[in-house]
Amino acid sequence: MIPSQDTLLRALLVALDGRNAFQTAKLRQAGLRGGACDRAAFLDRFPFTTKAELLADQAANPPYGSNLTFPIDRYVRLSQTSGSSGTPLRWLDTAESWAWMLDIWDRIFAEIGVGPGDRVFVAFSFGPFLGFWTAFEAAARRGCLVIPGGGQSTRGRIEAMRDNRATVLLCTPTYAVRLGEDAAADGHAITGLRRIVVAGEPGGSIPAIRSRLEALWPGAVVIDHHGMTEIGPVTWQPADLPGVLRIDETAYLAEILNPVTLEPVSPGATGELVLTNLGRLGMPLLRYRTGDLVRQRTDLPGLALDGGIIGRRDDLVIVRGVNVHPSAVEAVVRRFAEIAEYQVEQSNDRGMIELALTIELQPGATGKTEIADRLAEALRAALTLRIPVRVAASGALPRFEMKAKRWVKV
Amino acid sequence: MIPSQDTLLRALLVALDGRNAFQTAKLRQAGLRGGACDRAAFLDRFPFTTKAELLADQAANPPYGSNLTFPIDRYVRLSQTSGSSGTPLRWLDTAESWAWMLDIWDRIFAEIGVGPGDRVFVAFSFGPFLGFWTAFEAAARRGCLVIPGGGQSTRGRIEAMRDNRATVLLCTPTYAVRLGEDAAADGHAITGLRRIVVAGEPGGSIPAIRSRLEALWPGAVVIDHHGMTEIGPVTWQPADLPGVLRIDETAYLAEILNPVTLEPVSPGATGELVLTNLGRLGMPLLRYRTGDLVRQRTDLPGLALDGGIIGRRDDLVIVRGVNVHPSAVEAVVRRFAEIAEYQVEQSNDRGMIELALTIELQPGATGKTEIADRLAEALRAALTLRIPVRVAASGALPRFEMKAKRWVKV
Repeated sequence: MIPSQDTLLRALLVALDGRNAFQTAKLRQAGLRGGACDRAAFLDRFPFTTKAELLADQAANPPYGSNLTFPIDRYVRLSQTSGSSGTPLRWLDTAESWAWMLDIWDRIFAEIGVGPGDRVFVAFSFGPFLGFWTAFEAAARRGCLVIPGGGQSTRGRIEAMRDNRATVLLCTPTYAVRLGEDAAADGHAITGLRRIVVAGEPGGSIPAIRSRLEALWPGAVVIDHHGMTEIGPVTWQPADLPGVLRIDETAYLAEILNPVTLEPVSPGATGELVLTNLGRLGMPLLRYRTGDLVRQRTDLPGLALDGGIIGRRDDLVIVRGVNVHPSAVEAVVRRFAEIAEYQVEQSNDRGMIELALTIELQPGATGKTEIADRLAEALRAALTLRIPVRVAASGALPRFEMKAKRWVKV
Repeated sequence: MIPSQDTLLRALLVALDGRNAFQTAKLRQAGLRGGACDRAAFLDRFPFTTKAELLADQAANPPYGSNLTFPIDRYVRLSQTSGSSGTPLRWLDTAESWAWMLDIWDRIFAEIGVGPGDRVFVAFSFGPFLGFWTAFEAAARRGCLVIPGGGQSTRGRIEAMRDNRATVLLCTPTYAVRLGEDAAADGHAITGLRRIVVAGEPGGSIPAIRSRLEALWPGAVVIDHHGMTEIGPVTWQPADLPGVLRIDETAYLAEILNPVTLEPVSPGATGELVLTNLGRLGMPLLRYRTGDLVRQRTDLPGLALDGGIIGRRDDLVIVRGVNVHPSAVEAVVRRFAEIAEYQVEQSNDRGMIELALTIELQPGATGKTEIADRLAEALRAALTLRIPVRVAASGALPRFEMKAKRWVKV
């Protein structure tokens, strides 16, 4: 029998109170005691945790801050965030906390039908951020044959996938497109891939990107996933429900809150995902403001997100009164198979924000002006905004292996 | 009680006979049966295994060859050799075989005094070759805090080591020098490092490289190690016995043979190391010709190698009748702290082999001609050969993160 969220939350709070300095201070600040704090009191009074607060705590108590439940020599794994928005956060796990994350991946693999007999290629740098480390180890523990793709060129990875007859690929959606295109250009399409698990960017829930991936990798089902170094692996997409991300509620207590008022949004409305991990005891996060914007599917049981991660709280750009999420622009661009890469230039003239797109076409694509015009028209239809589009020379735009950075401020 | 090598060998042969097609054929070829083959008969009659034979088997039975003891879905890890001498070999491990290698590292860490409380930084690409994968996982399993250094710049790695107060570093000797030099150039020397475990190149047993590393990393003891993707982790250097590599005889049956006659060499003479792994059951190697040249220390109990790995059978170059191993040239060059990098050009004029050295000095070093003259003189004294030395511009020679390739044929 799976313990209820209430039981798990109570056990967590009791374990932290008096032992984890950071969380004990937050309990006291709210007038709470771990042993006498139920879910209602917790949700009502426990203060939110923000990334800025964690960074300040690590700066004040270097190198790992005070959010530690055990003596330092109990920790076995260090990870850190990619630091794309500044200083990276360092994150420690005990053997138990690490195993808790592997258990989540084990459930995900069971749900999406990955197990012994599968050959899992992980196109990941195996560096300091958590990324696919836990998926990789969980797949091996589950009995899959795992193939590490660190420190290799794209060509080396394609050869490894082909030679070893990979059946599952784990990487970012951008890189899955790149691998598929390069393999096809090689004249050596890779067959036999059953699943492509993508994370790190919202692409796995964007229909145009899914279609592109499924065209490049015939027979493979695209599975979206999202997680964070400081939280762990959070969601997965059921194989038969594209565009939906399920939250593992045996592992996370989730709230969807208005990012300004911090009150729960009405069912189906967009809000910020706030997470409490119920079993990562070594360095836990309670009511953590993830910054991810999501909306709940009200027609499905459990907690399912509609359209995946819609955007980031701080990615939202308001152009002439229109809310623009980078994922919305991505969704339009990716409908055009002729477009190999793109970049969005965001300018700010005394508070007036404007966008402009540069696109790069696939090798051999013709009709530059016509494609740019069609894209501009599609953007206008989707966003009710006129956004100029220009075509750059082949190879002029940067390519990405990990999280892509396509928005630049000018 | 540790089972004897005889017991382990008997159990291995019984397990393989009739189950592993490759090894069963070799047993039959020698007129042996697993159940009725003792150590003496094995050493007398079991045919050697060569890399060429394994490559041919994998080409004939793609992708993994016929050296498989279990059905394919029992295997969980794929590795491959670096392929520096051609096509890479693919190597599979079951969960048990993988754990057998982690156990070897566990014993090594116990011997060299690495355990809970240590912070182990692994400067490794986490790609397809086995390298430090097993050391990394064994250190975490042992309770060390492990810090993965894949996909990072040298500067990023230095910062990670400093910020996390690393106490143990695992990498190639070349890269340990590079990290130490760059950290010093930064004006931010890293203190607190206790152990540097080096592998992949013979440097850890070369006195000049050890001295250089110990000067760059005050307080750190250099520990040499060697292993191979297709064999596993084989040796370690006792902390108080620099220049000596011990073979883990609970894991390997080792022979030192004349590479031409394939008879055992006399005690203390140089020969080729031939290994049988006694517990990597999933894809074992029996009497494998490693190509590594070694000599036994006859004054120490157990099997200890004098001077580490002296060279490779196929690296030996005969110049005007003098046997030159690349490690001998390395040992001389590394006595010069002023030399940042070097390259050896090997020319072959109708069978007459000649060598020439190009060196690159440390930034700010003066006295080019004088250093080149001193090096030429030191090479003449050590090798009884005149080898011309020229000085290249700063930054002209390639740098290496993994196994260095400093010998080029012209």
